[in-house]
Amino acid sequence: MPLPTIEWEGDINGRVRLIDQTLLPTELKFVHCEDLKSIWYAIKTLMVRGAPAIGIAGAMGIVLGAKDIPNENTDEFLEKLGHVATYLRSSRPTAVNLFWGINRMERVAQENGNTPVQEIKEALLKEAMKIQEEDKIICRKIGENGAALIKDRTGVLTHCNAGGLATADYGTALAVLFKAKEQGKCINVYADETRPLLQGSRLTAWELMHAEIDVTLICDNMAAHVMKQGKIHCVVVGADRIAANGDTANKIGTYGVSILAKEHGIPFYVAAPVSTFDLTIQSGDKIPIEERSPEEVTNGFGKRTAPEGVKVFNPAFDVTPAKNITAIITEKGVIHKPSRENIKDFLGEPEFKTGITL
Amino acid sequence: MPLPTIEWEGDINGRVRLIDQTLLPTELKFVHCEDLKSIWYAIKTLMVRGAPAIGIAGAMGIVLGAKDIPNENTDEFLEKLGHVATYLRSSRPTAVNLFWGINRMERVAQENGNTPVQEIKEALLKEAMKIQEEDKIICRKIGENGAALIKDRTGVLTHCNAGGLATADYGTALAVLFKAKEQGKCINVYADETRPLLQGSRLTAWELMHAEIDVTLICDNMAAHVMKQGKIHCVVVGADRIAANGDTANKIGTYGVSILAKEHGIPFYVAAPVSTFDLTIQSGDKIPIEERSPEEVTNGFGKRTAPEGVKVFNPAFDVTPAKNITAIITEKGVIHKPSRENIKDFLGEPEFKTGITL
Repeated sequence: MPLPTIEWEGDINGRVRLIDQTLLPTELKFVHCEDLKSIWYAIKTLMVRGAPAIGIAGAMGIVLGAKDIPNENTDEFLEKLGHVATYLRSSRPTAVNLFWGINRMERVAQENGNTPVQEIKEALLKEAMKIQEEDKIICRKIGENGAALIKDRTGVLTHCNAGGLATADYGTALAVLFKAKEQGKCINVYADETRPLLQGSRLTAWELMHAEIDVTLICDNMAAHVMKQGKIHCVVVGADRIAANGDTANKIGTYGVSILAKEHGIPFYVAAPVSTFDLTIQSGDKIPIEERSPEEVTNGFGKRTAPEGVKVFNPAFDVTPAKNITAIITEKGVIHKPSRENIKDFLGEPEFKTGITL
Repeated sequence: MPLPTIEWEGDINGRVRLIDQTLLPTELKFVHCEDLKSIWYAIKTLMVRGAPAIGIAGAMGIVLGAKDIPNENTDEFLEKLGHVATYLRSSRPTAVNLFWGINRMERVAQENGNTPVQEIKEALLKEAMKIQEEDKIICRKIGENGAALIKDRTGVLTHCNAGGLATADYGTALAVLFKAKEQGKCINVYADETRPLLQGSRLTAWELMHAEIDVTLICDNMAAHVMKQGKIHCVVVGADRIAANGDTANKIGTYGVSILAKEHGIPFYVAAPVSTFDLTIQSGDKIPIEERSPEEVTNGFGKRTAPEGVKVFNPAFDVTPAKNITAIITEKGVIHKPSRENIKDFLGEPEFKTGITL
């Protein structure tokens, strides 16, 4: 049951329909983005979130931006499309899939630079739909490749939401669990609530309950205790950007979970499409980390819960070093003990060389 | 500026006045407990919380319970007082100071068993006031002993609230920081918000801001990232019960922080009065861990943030093994590298032998 996380409605003059994820699980509401500014805002405010999903949102955002550029002059169109791309890139800095999706759209525009603007717009819409379709297949393959690592009667910890809502279809980390369940394996999932925005309690618990997978919600600070009790046999999380050496940026708290897993001898898996690799970045310390508003921490629950004027540090992501990662599960297979060398071997020389450039 | 966390008002027929800590920091409201049930409820619902403070609340609760027992018959009084004690003990299971305070009051009643009930009641009130007065002195001594471990220009992480609100006066973990500040040391504190009840953001940040100590609020899952950035030079936390071998129960999340501190080579200090040792318990796995209502996690602060019907695990405490603790700071001095042997040496043979019995 793929979730209609983000969909394009109509032709090149159409619009984006997406689930407003900030309202889940108490309200399932669809939002329509008719223009560039509204999709930028939807990405910025996390109405749509999750690395693969914002890759798709970025691509569809290019189509929305293109819609409002006149058809008269191709050069002028391409120039203005560049501004559209720059603007969309400014919405969120960490997840590389956004840049990857936008770059791919820009390449298509360039490749069609000798055709009328109308045709470029059609090529762009086609490409955005292709990115979305590919993501569905990628999710299924990540699920299959990852489920092979999940034994029957397994306790799994996950952090944040890397499920259907974070992708076009089936998720990345959760795809692994959905597939394991389909294979008849009995799994018990512990979902970190994932402060400040509670994607774990609002989205992951919701998705797993709908899939009839046993899920127990915990606060982030309970993970170590649950591990000590022997209830967790592996950790599976998503990723927002993976550096050339395997260091992985993901939702804040992931790095801490990786340390706790190591301490308790628990395998730690990252599930992500190949588009999450950013081979232009050599190691994790170079990945830009988004800092978000203090209010997410101080006014999280509809009520102020911290003193007025308190100083807050609110990084949205952290970086897990490759040494803490047992394996990276991708649509192309599993990279065990990720390192610069075996990531290079796995992705192949040409891909590694050209990289996923920003 | 000691906080009037909990005070006795009047003579043996008086009442308890306490700050309702569930309303802080947005509202500073005093609650009056006139009888046994109301103080039990105040302890249970965390209007008063923090191991030393609930030790005092337990002692004052005995006075409240005694108030409503007739003066006619001493034997009957002592028997009924036993029921009062049993009832009060049922309020919260983990922090040993509650039992310690109640036991001490019961001993006083027994020792005065040959006097008229009126005099026993007076002896009980005197003892409760003595426990409170002693706690004030203990806080100051913990502060002095701990501050010696804090260098100038130090980044400190703390978890939950072990401040003035958790004690009669100055705190345990926060006493160390208050004293360091008084000594002119520059410290920058990172306060874990401490889900689910946010004692860190609601209480610790508030107390530190009032003391003009630099404090930055973070979500619990940000601690590892902040440590990696080199901003933390030591961790100081309180304790709810310390086993004979040094294993320490404290607010849920403390165990995880101890692992993160070890990973980053950061000293991890526990600050607690000697009354927190429970020498009848040989190791931490025997300490009872309170589990609290799922609603604390799903309906944090006036708004539901998880799907209806989701399963929740909500332990209020976890146990940090002695091996993760650099030192335990008490009013009698500092126990470095705590172990069964050096705790025994430190507390002295007689105290160790008789123990703090339940």
